[in-house]
Amino acid sequence: MRFLAACHRRPVDATPIWIMRQAGRYLPEYRAIRDKLSFMEMCRRPDVAAEVTLQPLRHFELDAAIVFADILLPLEGMGIGFHFSPEDGPVIERPVRGAAELTGVRPFDARRDLPHVLETVKLVRRELDERTPVIGFSGAPFTLASYVVEGGHSRTYEHIKRLMYGDPETYGRLMALLADAVVDYLLAQIEAGAHAVQVFDSWAGCLAPFDYERFVLPYARDVVARVKQRGVPVIYFVNGAAGMLSLVGQAGSDVVGVDWRVELDHAWEQLGDVAVQGNLDPVALLGPPQAIEERVADILRRAAGRPGHIFNLGHGVLPSTPPDNVKYLVDAVHRLSAKSASG
Amino acid sequence: MRFLAACHRRPVDATPIWIMRQAGRYLPEYRAIRDKLSFMEMCRRPDVAAEVTLQPLRHFELDAAIVFADILLPLEGMGIGFHFSPEDGPVIERPVRGAAELTGVRPFDARRDLPHVLETVKLVRRELDERTPVIGFSGAPFTLASYVVEGGHSRTYEHIKRLMYGDPETYGRLMALLADAVVDYLLAQIEAGAHAVQVFDSWAGCLAPFDYERFVLPYARDVVARVKQRGVPVIYFVNGAAGMLSLVGQAGSDVVGVDWRVELDHAWEQLGDVAVQGNLDPVALLGPPQAIEERVADILRRAAGRPGHIFNLGHGVLPSTPPDNVKYLVDAVHRLSAKSASG
Repeated sequence: MRFLAACHRRPVDATPIWIMRQAGRYLPEYRAIRDKLSFMEMCRRPDVAAEVTLQPLRHFELDAAIVFADILLPLEGMGIGFHFSPEDGPVIERPVRGAAELTGVRPFDARRDLPHVLETVKLVRRELDERTPVIGFSGAPFTLASYVVEGGHSRTYEHIKRLMYGDPETYGRLMALLADAVVDYLLAQIEAGAHAVQVFDSWAGCLAPFDYERFVLPYARDVVARVKQRGVPVIYFVNGAAGMLSLVGQAGSDVVGVDWRVELDHAWEQLGDVAVQGNLDPVALLGPPQAIEERVADILRRAAGRPGHIFNLGHGVLPSTPPDNVKYLVDAVHRLSAKSASG
Repeated sequence: MRFLAACHRRPVDATPIWIMRQAGRYLPEYRAIRDKLSFMEMCRRPDVAAEVTLQPLRHFELDAAIVFADILLPLEGMGIGFHFSPEDGPVIERPVRGAAELTGVRPFDARRDLPHVLETVKLVRRELDERTPVIGFSGAPFTLASYVVEGGHSRTYEHIKRLMYGDPETYGRLMALLADAVVDYLLAQIEAGAHAVQVFDSWAGCLAPFDYERFVLPYARDVVARVKQRGVPVIYFVNGAAGMLSLVGQAGSDVVGVDWRVELDHAWEQLGDVAVQGNLDPVALLGPPQAIEERVADILRRAAGRPGHIFNLGHGVLPSTPPDNVKYLVDAVHRLSAKSASG
């Protein structure tokens, strides 16, 4: 399995590729299911979640599947209710802004709280047999905390930064609870059959390196260390972290995911001896094939000579992406990287 | 004038500071005027715009004034109508998505289209006499184009990137028109009395370095070169560019503004021999004084030993900022940098 070989920085016949949100709205057969079920219903039904996980692999020569789920799912079992609003996206019903709101939060237990996600991992693993690896995932502690404190998406992250600066004890207790949840969730997905796991720190890029180092990195490092003991590769992806990659690398993951706002070789120099995942701008997939080809070639050229490159977008695939362009991308990555390996 | 000395990388008695959006909603006396006039009315009345420009200088020991205006103002004279919606911010009435929409766009002329801004610069300059320098400003060509093409704010910048990839000729014609507008506008502000000018590329950080280099940098470099001939310092600020600062530096400005998502010394290493402006997280001003002090000290420590540091936030000051914290920041920058110069 090319993807796992690359995670371990072993030689591959061509660069592996998977795509963040590859099970998603850009696929007509996904939308056909989504028209009948709510997003949360899809997450809660292992048969549906497994089907949606497998859909992109029927069209494209992807090198890994990623289980269909949402990063907010663990919150419900912790007593932090949320729903999705059509306009604003996720809405946390009672945001945690201080010690008082934290008293209602309880530890997460994957087997009790999210048995359906674990069942989905098992179904996908069985269906794929041993041809294609399955990636499990979780939000990182800070990214989960940002939802819990902000109450949803944020432009400024004022509330979580205020908590960090003004009440570091409550902030630390929330982060410790979430770190335990993330570890439990990832270990349970590994036990259910995940070959690798990705930790999404989607919003940690809102922080100055000064604050990332003090308030985020210790928890990310703790999560990575505890999960790595299980022996499967851990991918740590921080969106918007182009200016602090050397800190991101200190979390100790096997693979670091990077967004598109940095040249891959420049990123890799700062990360050192790890595998690197990325990093095409998702919007490039809205351009003509030639624009995709040029940008794929540039990324592969910057990755050449170092083992351990996993191709991916720098963020999730956009709903407006033509599926034909996803096919073009996947094939171009394999074609151009196989060529460069032989020549 | 400390600020101008730092722009030229000459020795200063203390690090100069000004604050992006220092004339703004966090000040009660600004809000008192804003309660009576629309934002556009404030921009169109030189007496009001000058008053608002001067307000923060009465409270804080700021080292520069920046003229009160909006980066979208030049668009109206170019035949690109817009208004501000309370929910969504700026709304471009007919976004330019292809060659057809571009036919209605005409060249900008600062004296014809924005005499009130030039009058504001003159009033502020007269009022301040020679004690404090006045900064003029404009949006950069790409940031203006992103509004014109997207139709307002955007999360993904899909439309402008599509135009770039799919119709580079129309994209190039729009950018050339905007570059001419920016140059004309900045030169007119300099003629009216601005001691320095800042070019805001607020949204160029949405691009991969591959695209920034090909589609943005040539226009930024052209603007900077044409304005620099007038002999006043040019500041080029790109928000979200932590991963491509060496490209940003190639625009050739005297001063490069950097956001808060990168350590200042790390940024400066990539920029080389220029003055650097930044880079405190605006949200740090919502924290207690101790949190502000720690972060100011860290930034000054990273700037030490290099001439040409201008302190600023990494983005505009937030409306929710307590004015007392702004005072604390300005005084802390002067106190801590004067100390370190003597010790």
